[in-house]
This record gives sequence, C-alpha cells and structure tokens, in this order.
Amino acid sequence: MAEKAALGIDIGGTKIAVGIVTADGKVGNRVRTATPEDPEEVLRVVVESVDQLGEEADGLPVGVGAAGLVAGDGRVAFAPNLAWRDHPLRAELETRLERPVHVENDANASAWAEHRVGVANDLSSVLLLAVGTGIGGGLVIDGRLIRGANGYAAEFGHIVVNEGGRECPCGNRGCLEAMASGDALGATVTEWRREGRIPEDSILSLFPETTGVHVGRAAQAGDETAAAAVAECGRWLGVGIASLVNALDPEIVVIGGGVASLGGHLLLPARQAFAERAIGAAYREVPQVVFTALEKHSTLVGAGLLALEATLPTG
Amino acid sequence: MAEKAALGIDIGGTKIAVGIVTADGKVGNRVRTATPEDPEEVLRVVVESVDQLGEEADGLPVGVGAAGLVAGDGRVAFAPNLAWRDHPLRAELETRLERPVHVENDANASAWAEHRVGVANDLSSVLLLAVGTGIGGGLVIDGRLIRGANGYAAEFGHIVVNEGGRECPCGNRGCLEAMASGDALGATVTEWRREGRIPEDSILSLFPETTGVHVGRAAQAGDETAAAAVAECGRWLGVGIASLVNALDPEIVVIGGGVASLGGHLLLPARQAFAERAIGAAYREVPQVVFTALEKHSTLVGAGLLALEATLPTG
Repeated sequence: MAEKAALGIDIGGTKIAVGIVTADGKVGNRVRTATPEDPEEVLRVVVESVDQLGEEADGLPVGVGAAGLVAGDGRVAFAPNLAWRDHPLRAELETRLERPVHVENDANASAWAEHRVGVANDLSSVLLLAVGTGIGGGLVIDGRLIRGANGYAAEFGHIVVNEGGRECPCGNRGCLEAMASGDALGATVTEWRREGRIPEDSILSLFPETTGVHVGRAAQAGDETAAAAVAECGRWLGVGIASLVNALDPEIVVIGGGVASLGGHLLLPARQAFAERAIGAAYREVPQVVFTALEKHSTLVGAGLLALEATLPTG
Repeated sequence: MAEKAALGIDIGGTKIAVGIVTADGKVGNRVRTATPEDPEEVLRVVVESVDQLGEEADGLPVGVGAAGLVAGDGRVAFAPNLAWRDHPLRAELETRLERPVHVENDANASAWAEHRVGVANDLSSVLLLAVGTGIGGGLVIDGRLIRGANGYAAEFGHIVVNEGGRECPCGNRGCLEAMASGDALGATVTEWRREGRIPEDSILSLFPETTGVHVGRAAQAGDETAAAAVAECGRWLGVGIASLVNALDPEIVVIGGGVASLGGHLLLPARQAFAERAIGAAYREVPQVVFTALEKHSTLVGAGLLALEATLPTG
C-alpha cells in the first residue's frame, strides 16, 4: 500500500493553515494566511493555499477544522469569532476543491489528533481545551470523537463558571472563555488598571491598553503583576477543568492553544484549582493536566487524520 | 424464551428500594426501607429486602444503583451522602446474595432507564439530572452509558456554576448541587431569612427553620416567597443545564429526583435561564428540558435493566 496522506485545513479566527498530513500525523508542506473577515474571502484563501501546495495535494482527501459550531452536514451554524452564520462550508469547499471534504470543529480535530498521534495516543478518553483568543474544546470517549446530537458538543469555553461575571463573546456572562482565555487575560489587566491595581514598577503601567498577548509576554519577562493576572486566569481555567472532569471523568486533560505558551505561569495555578475541586479527590486519582504535544499543528493534523480515516475501508 | 426479569436495587441517601424489574421496564413487587447510616447495616437491609421478595427473586440477576462514585470494579470510592469510603459494595453483595451483582451510580442507572424505557426511549443521547437532596447526573451518548475512565463521569451536581458561592457537601463552593438542589432550596430561604427578606405574609415567616421540602410545599400551596425561592433554584438549574448542553449537546435533558415534583415552579425558570445561555441558540434548535417518565422508579428500573442486559447473550 502506498503511503497515505491527506490535506489538513485549519480555519481559525486569526489564521488559516493548509498542509499535507501523513497517516502517522507528520506535517509536510504547509501554507499559512491571515483569516479574512468575509466568508467568501475565506473560501478563496483556502483554495489558493491548496493550489500553492501544487501537485502533491492533488486528489488527497481533505479535512477541515473550523472555529465554529459545525453541524453534521458540514454547515457552520455559528462561529463566535468568524462571520459565518448557517454557512454551508462543506458544500462550498467540495464544489471548489472538486472532492469530498470532511468538516469538523477545530478543537474536536485537535482532540482527535492528540488521541491518535499526540500526548494522549495511548489513552482512550481525552478532554482537550484549546485556550487561545477564546476557548475551544474537544472530547474523545472510549476511542470515539464525541460530536453531540447536532455536532455542537465540547463547547467547553461556554460552560458557566462565574454566573453574572464578565461578558463573553457568545453573549452570556461568566463563561470559562470570559474568565480564562487570552482575551480574558487582557480584560483582567484592564479591570485591574481601572481599579488602580497596576503598581508603577510593573511594565504594564507603561501602556494605556494591554492585550492578552502583551500581558503574557510581560509575565514571561518576569513582571509580577502580569504573572498574577496569568495566575488568575489559570485559576479560572482550573475551576473549569474541575467542572469538566467531574462531568466527564477523562483519562487526561490536554491544554492547547496559544495561551499554552505561558507554561507553568498558567498551568500550575490551573492544576491547583482543579485538584482542590475534583470530586472525591482524596479517595481517587485525578487525571493529569498536560500541554499539547502537537502544539499549533493539532487542528491541521486532526482534520487530516479524520479525512484519511473517513476514506479508509475500515472507516 | 421465558419472560426475563431482574432484581433492581436503589441505594439512596434516604431510602433503599428493592424490586422486581421486567425486561420492558415494569416494576413488580417492591420493598422500601429508610437508609441506615452504618454501611454494614445497609448491606443487611438489602439482603433482608431481597428475602422479603421471596421465591420470585430467587436466582434473578441483580443490579444496584448506588448514590456515590462507583468504580469499574463495583467499589464505591466516595459517597457524599453515605458513609461509604472505598467500600467494596459489589463484592460484599455478591457474597451475601450468592450471585453476580452489577453496581452502577444511581443517576447513571436512571439515565439508562429513561433511554431504554422512559421519556427518552427513542433517542440515542440523554443527559439526566437527578435533583433531590443533592444533584446526581447520568449520561447516554450514541446509545452508550458514559461511565468515564474510572466510573465517575456525570457528576453533574459538581460542575461549578458560581465559583466562591455557597458551600457544597462535596467540600467545594458554588457547585450546581450547592445552588439548585433540594438542600439549596432550604439554604436559599435560610439566607433570605437572615437578610430579613421573608415578608410577614409568607407562611415561611412562621417557622424558624425551613428545609427544601417545606419550601417546596409552601410554593405549591401558593406562597409567593417560597415560589420565588424555587424559581431562584430553577434559574441556577438552568445555568447548569446550559453549561452541560454546551459541553455535551444531548438530544434531550431529563430532570428527575424529588425536586421534580415542584413542576413548573422549577422547570419554567430553568428552561428560561438555559435558553438564554445555550451557545448559538439563535442559530440552532436547543434540546427539550423535560421531567422524568419513570419518576422515583428510574434508578431501580435502570439498575435492573443493566443487570438483565449484562446477562443476555448479546451483552
């Protein structure tokens, strides 16, 4: 049998990545582009990226991981960070790429990648949190990707941990995404600034506004106030992890997304808050909370593997 | 083939029920007893109840639904409302009843019963919340009971909805159980009383202390303050349902447990709070939130059916 490969496509809120994915989860040639706002432009970028990969991409099965609520028929019902509303993504791409396209939620694809070739590859159940600008989620139970009745399962960013708290892009308040994402990190410092809680010796005091990326960099550079803000988001992340572990009892919790680059600043308070809240923790082992092995490639790899597996005889 | 039946055993925090369950989910003879505190006494009550059922119970497969964290080997790791700590329930019962015993978490058994013969019997995914003194949970996805890596999945009472809020029997704060259970209903009125928020024309003002049961009865009798307390718990229940639907996308949400007797007083605010928080609700259908069909028999029936199915050739 010839070596199998697929085309993996990661359509996120900020960038689109298209690349060759082998059956063992390796990433070959890859093209990255900033995500345009207009849905029609998104399709154009994807097609152009596939063209740029040249002959190597010809005829390969295509898997897409998209940042939104992906229904069973490959429509994107709603995407908090993209302009898609009831958008027939699969049908549009199948027409343009002239082959079957498998469309999955991006964090679902990431969870599948970690389960098949990543940090959880010897485990049958995986709970993944993709902590970036927002928070996505993916879930594998008993070796099966859990999509839910409509394909909308694992929107773990939108479990409510702090009812009535900070506004969330989804329209609610106090969602995990509103408390523990990259944007939440920026919002935390904005609130602290308003309350006069940024000391003069903090680098954060030099800027009138700071995004989560700025705060993260300041924390990594040793700024104590920034590190405290990261720790606060980490604590909320741990509250969310506890809720999800109590609800789902996975073998492992995997943290991916851009915020994962903050390392122990984020992970240690998250682990502590989680351990304090996991039910019956004194009488049982609680799952490990670890960072992704596949890092920024996880959605691309998972989407490619799902497309490959959909085309294999054993399904 | 002879008509199949099993012995269903429901070991809850307040009562133990043992009864005959047929393959189509009907309950025959049944014995109920208050739950003793001592774990050894619990075993004695179960064995006596089985004896009371007489010859009809001889040799039937036995299924138990127990209010605790039930591990894969039938040990109860931890039970917030019972004295079990790492208790070998299955082994103890197998010795005493001289046959194989299937042990499951009580709300897991209830969810299975609703899926097989109850309100969700034509659906492949069911999320159940058993709202009584505490809150238990059960989950069926793609026609499979989700037990988790250790058997501890679906502890939906212990998702955190109000971090830092009211104390929960599990040791944390702000769990769904702490905000929306029968005990939470009593606690809500206790707090209102402390804050001087019980008007003199409320029947609740006549009592120095009120449990959730009292408040529930007062609400059903038309007391507005009691109804407001029930609505407050219902609202929290809706917040929890929204979190769980966003995380799991089930086809239906089933509410069981004693608090279900409060009907619309509880359910209408729960539905409203849920609908306001389900992600992308404007772009999709959200699952129905309904009451149990099997009512107080659901654990008994589910435990019996699980035992029956475990002994059938098709597994």
